[in-house]
Amino acid sequence: MKSYSVLDSILSPKDVKGLSTEKLELLCAELREFIIDNVSKTGGHLASNLGVVELTVVLHKVFDTPKDEIVWDVGHQCYSHKILTGRKERFNTLRQEGGISGFPKRAESVHDAFVAGHAGTSVSVACGIAKAKQIKGDRHKVIAVAGDGAFTNGMIYEALTNSAVDCKNLVIVLNDNEMSISENVSALAAYLTKIRSTSSYFKAKDAVEETLDKLPIIGEHVKHAVKLTKYAAKKVLYNTNFFSDLGLTYFGPLDGHDINALTEVFERVKKLDQPCIVHISTEKGRGYDFASSNPSAYHGVSKFDVEYGLVDYVPASGFSAELGKYITYLAAKDERICAITAAMKDSTGLQPFAKRYPDRFFDVGIAESHAAAFAGGLAAQGMMPVFAVYSSFLQRSYDQILHDLAIEPQHVLLAVDRAGIVGDDGETHQGMFDVAMLSNIPKMVIYSPATLAGLRYCVKQALYQNNGPVAVRYPRGGEEKSDLDYLAVREDVKLVKNGHKNLLVSYGRMGHRAADAAKSLLKEDIRVSVLHLQKIYPLSDEIIEIMSEYDNILFAEEGIKRGSISEYAGNRLMEKGFKGKYAVRAVDNMFIPQAVPSRALELAGLDSVSLANHFRSDRQGGNN
Amino acid sequence: MKSYSVLDSILSPKDVKGLSTEKLELLCAELREFIIDNVSKTGGHLASNLGVVELTVVLHKVFDTPKDEIVWDVGHQCYSHKILTGRKERFNTLRQEGGISGFPKRAESVHDAFVAGHAGTSVSVACGIAKAKQIKGDRHKVIAVAGDGAFTNGMIYEALTNSAVDCKNLVIVLNDNEMSISENVSALAAYLTKIRSTSSYFKAKDAVEETLDKLPIIGEHVKHAVKLTKYAAKKVLYNTNFFSDLGLTYFGPLDGHDINALTEVFERVKKLDQPCIVHISTEKGRGYDFASSNPSAYHGVSKFDVEYGLVDYVPASGFSAELGKYITYLAAKDERICAITAAMKDSTGLQPFAKRYPDRFFDVGIAESHAAAFAGGLAAQGMMPVFAVYSSFLQRSYDQILHDLAIEPQHVLLAVDRAGIVGDDGETHQGMFDVAMLSNIPKMVIYSPATLAGLRYCVKQALYQNNGPVAVRYPRGGEEKSDLDYLAVREDVKLVKNGHKNLLVSYGRMGHRAADAAKSLLKEDIRVSVLHLQKIYPLSDEIIEIMSEYDNILFAEEGIKRGSISEYAGNRLMEKGFKGKYAVRAVDNMFIPQAVPSRALELAGLDSVSLANHFRSDRQGGNN
Repeated sequence: MKSYSVLDSILSPKDVKGLSTEKLELLCAELREFIIDNVSKTGGHLASNLGVVELTVVLHKVFDTPKDEIVWDVGHQCYSHKILTGRKERFNTLRQEGGISGFPKRAESVHDAFVAGHAGTSVSVACGIAKAKQIKGDRHKVIAVAGDGAFTNGMIYEALTNSAVDCKNLVIVLNDNEMSISENVSALAAYLTKIRSTSSYFKAKDAVEETLDKLPIIGEHVKHAVKLTKYAAKKVLYNTNFFSDLGLTYFGPLDGHDINALTEVFERVKKLDQPCIVHISTEKGRGYDFASSNPSAYHGVSKFDVEYGLVDYVPASGFSAELGKYITYLAAKDERICAITAAMKDSTGLQPFAKRYPDRFFDVGIAESHAAAFAGGLAAQGMMPVFAVYSSFLQRSYDQILHDLAIEPQHVLLAVDRAGIVGDDGETHQGMFDVAMLSNIPKMVIYSPATLAGLRYCVKQALYQNNGPVAVRYPRGGEEKSDLDYLAVREDVKLVKNGHKNLLVSYGRMGHRAADAAKSLLKEDIRVSVLHLQKIYPLSDEIIEIMSEYDNILFAEEGIKRGSISEYAGNRLMEKGFKGKYAVRAVDNMFIPQAVPSRALELAGLDSVSLANHFRSDRQGGNN
Repeated sequence: MKSYSVLDSILSPKDVKGLSTEKLELLCAELREFIIDNVSKTGGHLASNLGVVELTVVLHKVFDTPKDEIVWDVGHQCYSHKILTGRKERFNTLRQEGGISGFPKRAESVHDAFVAGHAGTSVSVACGIAKAKQIKGDRHKVIAVAGDGAFTNGMIYEALTNSAVDCKNLVIVLNDNEMSISENVSALAAYLTKIRSTSSYFKAKDAVEETLDKLPIIGEHVKHAVKLTKYAAKKVLYNTNFFSDLGLTYFGPLDGHDINALTEVFERVKKLDQPCIVHISTEKGRGYDFASSNPSAYHGVSKFDVEYGLVDYVPASGFSAELGKYITYLAAKDERICAITAAMKDSTGLQPFAKRYPDRFFDVGIAESHAAAFAGGLAAQGMMPVFAVYSSFLQRSYDQILHDLAIEPQHVLLAVDRAGIVGDDGETHQGMFDVAMLSNIPKMVIYSPATLAGLRYCVKQALYQNNGPVAVRYPRGGEEKSDLDYLAVREDVKLVKNGHKNLLVSYGRMGHRAADAAKSLLKEDIRVSVLHLQKIYPLSDEIIEIMSEYDNILFAEEGIKRGSISEYAGNRLMEKGFKGKYAVRAVDNMFIPQAVPSRALELAGLDSVSLANHFRSDRQGGNN
């Protein structure tokens, strides 16, 4: 293991406190080197972590965790924090099965105040912690650290307008790196730019004030005018700011890489008995040229070579890219098609659409609730919006899909990316809930393709064979090696008959595993038919009829069991009087922890061997 | 029917356009009289509707619906709009089965641009409509009308910061009545007060400017200082405002009852080619003394006598009041208990708690997402927060419950009010989805009492026998006449045996109907046992075991079928090898329209007669 002159001596945050500026600067350099080196081997979030090294070091120098608490918004920028709080030695297990999480995790350390993974929660959570401390008479500070991207999310404003004002021990750090996950063009971004660009104006304030004070009084009418303008000027200088209007004491903008400046302000903040916001400017990817010059590419990375950077950066691949390409293709012939992203243009594959049809492309910021209602407004005018969004983030839109898209049906396509197990991001990012969540909304229709050709089929069906809200969900990554014989591509459903006793039902990429299981069983002369669904909700009477012809059914599903399609199909069968055996293999009442997807599937019993074993044990008279 | 000299002549909005100010004022007075008279007979939202009479009249005078479109936030203030757009004659059917909805409804009129019922959606929806119009080259305006209460909801900011800036044909009306549903003490409210109180300052602006322009120039240093201060002053006057910072042209604050002032500004706005916000001050309940002096009591009312007002206004009764009283009682002995409301202090019964424990009571505004995450922060510090919220509004918190309360379990009690059918508010307000929504979240525990005693039992169990997120859901209104023999009060589950063939399973207030059905069947010698659940999720193996002993089971549930407890129990039975008959009676893939609750239950087949008929037809060999 590489050795670091300062970093190696930091066993807990208290070791940071006594260091000179010089040593702190060295510590920051070493943290960057350590993070780059580690992430190049494990993969993870890079650019954002390189941006907050000085901030993290100064927070730990000035404040005293876990008595003071730091709530990281989104959480993927917590690497320096983890390294400084006793997790350096285990950091090489980052995002791996049983290893260090890429996000804050209370179970991992007392220094992690609260779980994070979704944007915009930090100020709300910090308000709660701060209030509880106030009630208990604990005067320690709670520091919420949120990027400008998170400030495009409404929850931050809910917290600011409703609760923050009253939290005397709340410190909000607005980490302004002029970019959310993809670049955001928003009123807030424009406003932050205005604040930054008027820093010279802010610096000039003392001079202005001095001049005002020295202004000679010449005649009563001038005196009066000057008095009024003086009042107005002071108001502008001290009192009129988006954040101060909301009752927060505002500090900034500060250079987020200037250790002394940060230390000075946070020392002041520490003594303050009122809620405040510290606005700092940082550079994403700082200290690693590849990352700082292309922070979006280095937001979340796989393994890479430190010297050469990412070899072949592809903005999106597999299902995401296919979705983007295909709706771009359709949009040429159909002027109604619009595309919406919540700050995920690149990773949801919408870049080509954005480039080709800028007027019909909308990046609404990290604002999934707004995105869904906004799509409803577009649809009400006859447009055909496609909202491409990760499954786990779509959870933010539940009420809007129900209230704004379903009660009076609006034809909106939810393109649900990262549906199913996503792997190393762990619990907060797994796409486990979209099927259960969406299917309880009346009139919803859901497709779940297994292949890229299936994706194109489903998108076309969704857009042109439906009139209300409709979802097409597809996994992270690319198409698996598939046996197209087994999988529906131009059909809603495909049955591969291997006899009339055993049936294995699945959808989406589980279809590959179902096919593999059936094939390997066939070699052992266990005949299992495979029913592959592509349109998964609602299921037609015909499909239930087909299922009811079998004696022994296993429904395998890469999602939460409660509210799953397997529960729904099981009930349909039951109400029909089905008397055979029915078993479900799905994720049962738990969150799936981080692990590579294939391993996570194994742990959930969703790999092809486990599926096959179900029928093997059954033949051996085993209980299933 | 009463006759009205002006109102009777308004058959469509175009009849408003030619009227003189005098006639318009008379029209407003007549609208108020008509609304008061009608609502006194039908019940409905009163105070908010009386507040926006002039606004509505002026919008229809200046703009041209349905070409221009009005998006009403929350929607309960749309009565004048409905009356002016051809629905006066049918207005006596307000909120009744088959009658006029109390909320905007596209199916009802081309003048209703979008459904509403939940707060904070209007600006997002209006942005979508405005964008679509822009794309289509349609220059008509889209007007979002939102109260200051809605501005405590994060979605409005998501729309403002991300999309509104770019919508040249968007007009936002901030209807500032200094009150959300209950009074909100928030940073935004304080800021609006500041704006209003500086209106004299705003009025003085012309004077100041004039003085500045006339200011004699005496010497270079003065000239310089004056130039700077002049710049600063102008900035203050025109450019520094919370809303203008977000890129909106700001007009206001205006007297929202001054027809000429409103007309003048909206005529200017109509010609404007940029997004703007018109801030108006209105008085809730205006024109009806009872309502204006107690707008909270007259927010939503049942029938009343116009002359005497509401006879006995009770802020909350039945289950809501009991919840509030009981947690207030528990809080005396347990300092950890906190209560949170999203602007519904009175109607969720939290008034006594707020009065007795103001330090532990939090009204966070109409901000359900924030409320849940905020509760998580409190819980992380060992507090025991109770978030009392209507079922339909809890839909806003789905992701926060999952992400902030369940992944790393936080002990938060969700007190889910108005669970089940609510009646005359219709589709947007039915509490149909909470069980399906909550139960797919891992580790969630859900209780559903049928009686007030049961509510106390469940709350105590929820608080002291659980460690993570837990919900207690209860219906709108009071306790029904109940046969306590049949209903569990101090138990999680209660079985009333009437033989081993037929079993009727239910929970919550459905228990009353189940008991009634079983009793009436007993008289016909059809023996149906009743299983009444009070802890409804998860179900223990013992309960599934009990169920599996019966041949013919009906599970009746006052909620959406997809994802219901009946589907869950059915699957558990199936996986256990149950071979009997299993049927589910629940709300199947539809939204329940407005009707009195007993009638809505009948329509859904959930009344005791329908339940009994299931077993009757079964005996007669009927198909169920």
